[in-house]
Amino acid sequence: MTTISKDAYLITFINVFAVDPANQSRLVDLLTKVTDQFVRYARGFVSSSLHRSLDGTKVTMYAQWHSMADYEAMRQDPRPLPYFRRALAMARFEPGSYEVVEEFAAAPSP
Amino acid sequence: MTTISKDAYLITFINVFAVDPANQSRLVDLLTKVTDQFVRYARGFVSSSLHRSLDGTKVTMYAQWHSMADYEAMRQDPRPLPYFRRALAMARFEPGSYEVVEEFAAAPSP
Repeated sequence: MTTISKDAYLITFINVFAVDPANQSRLVDLLTKVTDQFVRYARGFVSSSLHRSLDGTKVTMYAQWHSMADYEAMRQDPRPLPYFRRALAMARFEPGSYEVVEEFAAAPSP
Repeated sequence: MTTISKDAYLITFINVFAVDPANQSRLVDLLTKVTDQFVRYARGFVSSSLHRSLDGTKVTMYAQWHSMADYEAMRQDPRPLPYFRRALAMARFEPGSYEVVEEFAAAPSP
């Protein structure tokens, strides 16, 4: 389970993969496999959540890491690399690295 | 605080605003104001978290709602509309609606 908090001092990656709807579930399977087998063992990995767009055209990974250096070290690891290459062959990758600046909860009913 | 869980049966919006870095903090302020004053009071709103990209070029809202109908009803409300118009005047809006399909936690240390 992922918890989003601006007080956590993590780095957040929101990586959007634009994909042909025919390939969406293959891409979900691929990103599931690489995360489960490699990424979650990497130093500095905190959590990630994989999202399937309802229109079939996107898959978005919301991931939290302790630092950019930890994330970059994982991206240099040769073991997950073939998975990333296959993902990039079937999708247009729009990466983003973020900090959480605000959080909003539902207002109590009046 | 936002909790991401595939068992929550919510609809997730991951809305990316591509922005000139000179306008990033104005856009954060605007989206903070509209969420704080209007959106969080809307029926079906669960939570949202606002993210500032480290390179200055994006602002991304991660928002959870009970249903698409609730979200669309809020978008029809005339009160927040001027804020959304101002946001769209300074940013390129890439909306996405999703379901959470997988969650990953860090593997325990060996």
